[in-house]
Amino acid sequence: MLSSKVIVALDAMGGDYAPASIIQGADLVLSEYKASNANIQVEFLIYGQRDLLAPLIDSFPVLKAHSRLIHCESVVGSNDKPSLALRSSKNTSMGMAIDAVKQREADAVVSAGNTGALMAISKVYLRTLPGIDRPAIIGLFPTIDGKVAMLDLGANAECQSDNLVQFAIMGDAFAKVLLNIANPKVGLLNIGSEDIKGNEVVKGAWSVLTNQIGINFTGYVEADDIPLGKVDVVVADGFTGNVAIKMAEGVGYLSRKLLEKSFKSSLMAKLGYLLAKRALKQTFSAIDGRNYNGAMLVGLNGIVVKSHGGADKIAFANAIKVAIELRLKDINQKIIQEVKHLQHTIKINSAL
Amino acid sequence: MLSSKVIVALDAMGGDYAPASIIQGADLVLSEYKASNANIQVEFLIYGQRDLLAPLIDSFPVLKAHSRLIHCESVVGSNDKPSLALRSSKNTSMGMAIDAVKQREADAVVSAGNTGALMAISKVYLRTLPGIDRPAIIGLFPTIDGKVAMLDLGANAECQSDNLVQFAIMGDAFAKVLLNIANPKVGLLNIGSEDIKGNEVVKGAWSVLTNQIGINFTGYVEADDIPLGKVDVVVADGFTGNVAIKMAEGVGYLSRKLLEKSFKSSLMAKLGYLLAKRALKQTFSAIDGRNYNGAMLVGLNGIVVKSHGGADKIAFANAIKVAIELRLKDINQKIIQEVKHLQHTIKINSAL
Repeated sequence: MLSSKVIVALDAMGGDYAPASIIQGADLVLSEYKASNANIQVEFLIYGQRDLLAPLIDSFPVLKAHSRLIHCESVVGSNDKPSLALRSSKNTSMGMAIDAVKQREADAVVSAGNTGALMAISKVYLRTLPGIDRPAIIGLFPTIDGKVAMLDLGANAECQSDNLVQFAIMGDAFAKVLLNIANPKVGLLNIGSEDIKGNEVVKGAWSVLTNQIGINFTGYVEADDIPLGKVDVVVADGFTGNVAIKMAEGVGYLSRKLLEKSFKSSLMAKLGYLLAKRALKQTFSAIDGRNYNGAMLVGLNGIVVKSHGGADKIAFANAIKVAIELRLKDINQKIIQEVKHLQHTIKINSAL
Repeated sequence: MLSSKVIVALDAMGGDYAPASIIQGADLVLSEYKASNANIQVEFLIYGQRDLLAPLIDSFPVLKAHSRLIHCESVVGSNDKPSLALRSSKNTSMGMAIDAVKQREADAVVSAGNTGALMAISKVYLRTLPGIDRPAIIGLFPTIDGKVAMLDLGANAECQSDNLVQFAIMGDAFAKVLLNIANPKVGLLNIGSEDIKGNEVVKGAWSVLTNQIGINFTGYVEADDIPLGKVDVVVADGFTGNVAIKMAEGVGYLSRKLLEKSFKSSLMAKLGYLLAKRALKQTFSAIDGRNYNGAMLVGLNGIVVKSHGGADKIAFANAIKVAIELRLKDINQKIIQEVKHLQHTIKINSAL
């Protein structure tokens, strides 16, 4: 195992509740690790405006003792175009936090800021891993009795078959690390499970993956099977993947609203709610979005984790923990090894 | 208004519960219209195997009086490839029922059979409407306080911008007819609401639609806004649209399962359920999938409605009612008019 000291660079200015949620989240991680006697030593590099951050950090003595504040002149706007954000990235909290990973001053970076900017800056600063043409965004989602990893969640609106094959490899490594599954079931998102269905891009990826040794590729998966946990990893282009998770979000919201409406609709229903409240909370805490916060920009020469922009301290703390775990289990080394293995078997296959 | 006599051709052999659900569903429609004193006279042409169907129809005297049974030698298999189903369609219940629309013996056809086969046979038998290159599948879905129409649900795994523009026109006409909205809000499904987001196909469609007079085009819509009812019509390619509705189905199922689990987890919760049961049923009946059964294969020279394969009699009856309403309000005439109008304004725009 690697050294259990991890240095995390934080973009303290990104997200709807920054900088408070960032600082509180970082402090929460330190106290949780302390409480659980985890043998992990975490240090933070906090990037942002000094006059805003210094007094805030002062109020968290433990965090103050385990962090260093680096002043940044400017901030990436939440609606800045990625190209603009990249050009002016040098003095921004996001750009400087990513640069800390490039300079190996930090082991990982976490930001709740502009996703497009984070991807653009990370690509240029960190470059992609050997054998990976395009990075993707990967995250975890709840299923009926576990979790599923899904990518690409929106980095690549248009993909080729090769990209999907590389996503499958990265998804496989990610699930091994974060889901602790030895041989994750990897499925390719399609609109039917028959071989003849789908567009040319998924069909092309299917034909490579189905002959691929070393990945437990289970073929096509349809979207309604994702929440049922039929596979551990779902591979899709960034357009489809993004639509799928946003649809899940929207339907989840609709279900909650209808439930609230039901429970408020009569005196009997209100009483029923009071009795069932505790059980409902327990069951639904399993799918609380905050426990799934933290998506990795996978395929880069460094660990970059994106937090939801609307993250509170609990959600942001989760994103930090994702970054730490990815580092401790050395996700990128696993990806590099799998890519090598894949290239090897593809060569063998084509030589046959 | 058109004559209120409608003749519906039924593929009595398609779907998981055929022929029982088809016959029972048809009888249900007749009794509902009678009970509501609707001034609509419905007649059925029932296509399928005589020895199976005749005794079944005998047990529904009202249906028997308003239907004619046409024997068919064969049946389209639920897993038949569309090309095969098309070649051998002549003597199948599906093929003959579609042919009845072609021959103008029936005003519409309803089938719960193989979707790919239904589309393939319908395209060849009925041809597309003038100005429509490719038919699509359109259906209604529940939102927080109403319904939304969405297309394409899976007929076209790959689309060009022109197809999406045509889908928008057809969706607009469909929402006018089935949702009774004078000026439906039409949105283009994308992964961001900014102009720069998305793939080339949606961007191309956006630039035509945004200059389009006569359609209330509201720009891009993200998937999480669909269940919130932000728009009345969602336009997508068939790959994305199919993934979106299947994801919604899967998350809906997950929510129900978690709810059941909560209510069973303790005595208090069980009691709570008993008290809230009636309110829950009332609220959730609004989103009962059976009330949304019946998707139109839109863009064809005839009305073709696809029922869910797993439809019971209530769901299948709903699909029949969709077909009748589309006929009474002359959906296809509306589409033809809108296409003409669009071609007119596109010419004017390009002449400017």
